[in-house]
Amino acid sequence: MSAADTPLLPMNFCSDCGQPVSLKIPDDDTRLRHVCSHCGTIHYQNPKMVVGSIPLWRDDERVLLCRRAIEPRHGYWTLPAGFMENSETTEEAATRETMEEAGARIELKGLFSLMNVPHVHQVHLFYRAHLLDLDFAAGVESLEVKLFREDEIPWDDIAFPTVAQTLRLFFDDLKAHRSGQPFGVHSRDIRKRMRP
Amino acid sequence: MSAADTPLLPMNFCSDCGQPVSLKIPDDDTRLRHVCSHCGTIHYQNPKMVVGSIPLWRDDERVLLCRRAIEPRHGYWTLPAGFMENSETTEEAATRETMEEAGARIELKGLFSLMNVPHVHQVHLFYRAHLLDLDFAAGVESLEVKLFREDEIPWDDIAFPTVAQTLRLFFDDLKAHRSGQPFGVHSRDIRKRMRP
Repeated sequence: MSAADTPLLPMNFCSDCGQPVSLKIPDDDTRLRHVCSHCGTIHYQNPKMVVGSIPLWRDDERVLLCRRAIEPRHGYWTLPAGFMENSETTEEAATRETMEEAGARIELKGLFSLMNVPHVHQVHLFYRAHLLDLDFAAGVESLEVKLFREDEIPWDDIAFPTVAQTLRLFFDDLKAHRSGQPFGVHSRDIRKRMRP
Repeated sequence: MSAADTPLLPMNFCSDCGQPVSLKIPDDDTRLRHVCSHCGTIHYQNPKMVVGSIPLWRDDERVLLCRRAIEPRHGYWTLPAGFMENSETTEEAATRETMEEAGARIELKGLFSLMNVPHVHQVHLFYRAHLLDLDFAAGVESLEVKLFREDEIPWDDIAFPTVAQTLRLFFDDLKAHRSGQPFGVHSRDIRKRMRP
């Protein structure tokens, strides 16, 4: 049995004692884990959260996107988002990532989408947000940041399916909102796309 | 600088190559990480998700709780919930934990609460759910499982603040729902309680 047969990322050595780990199902468990044969530590792996915002400039209903300066998907457009850090809340993560990637100050308005991406062990959360001013600027992980109306969104050059789906749902809700509907909270599962 | 000064859990050795790690701020980063001095691997740590359900027996509006057979909070009551696993979605995690801890079959009805617990690097999600039958039974991590009306909930013996808050919000929404209001999606931050 190798890590390739499990949803675990490879692990060779125990991070506590430095001795080799092996794959075992611990007592009272049903899944393979990396277990240290020396000190017995069980090394669990769990999904990570990617948290971001949908920064709306309300005057003309444009949304702020960032063009990625890093891999994966260098050169493609995304909403400002990134890995949530220890000791912060989801709202703090969304606000921080929006500042780091887009230099943008926002007021958060509520959770908008929860996107499961199980084949990469991630959950993506996007919060609605209002841009407080137009003094945004690309951070080190962005090539450029720019406001887009719905009909200007570069749909073919969006970096991730979770971002494309969130944007489509958002512009739909924005139209419904004009006729008095509240914004929804949307949940979607993004399954692995088969490569041709 | 020690790990105690950071939000990082202790780490001694590189899980890739087995050599010692040290705390450093990598290039293009702003936070201390465990970095391997031998192979250069940066070991990121991120919050974990705890996902569960609020299983409602609709005939008499009772909710299913589990009395914990494990630490922390052995003997206290909780909603069925647990750490999300790699390769699953949040809905799959909620359904699986409800089966594992309470032996209960449910139909999920939608996200109800998102609770940040930043001092333990966790985000708790609870989904509304309808119990499909009354054939539930305590799993290995539960001493007993039992249905409670709102006025029967053992509020002083609830295991975690995220569960108590979720239950209070749920019964409030349940009353509002009777008069035609939709259920909300509630977000709360649970900060560290100072011990006396």
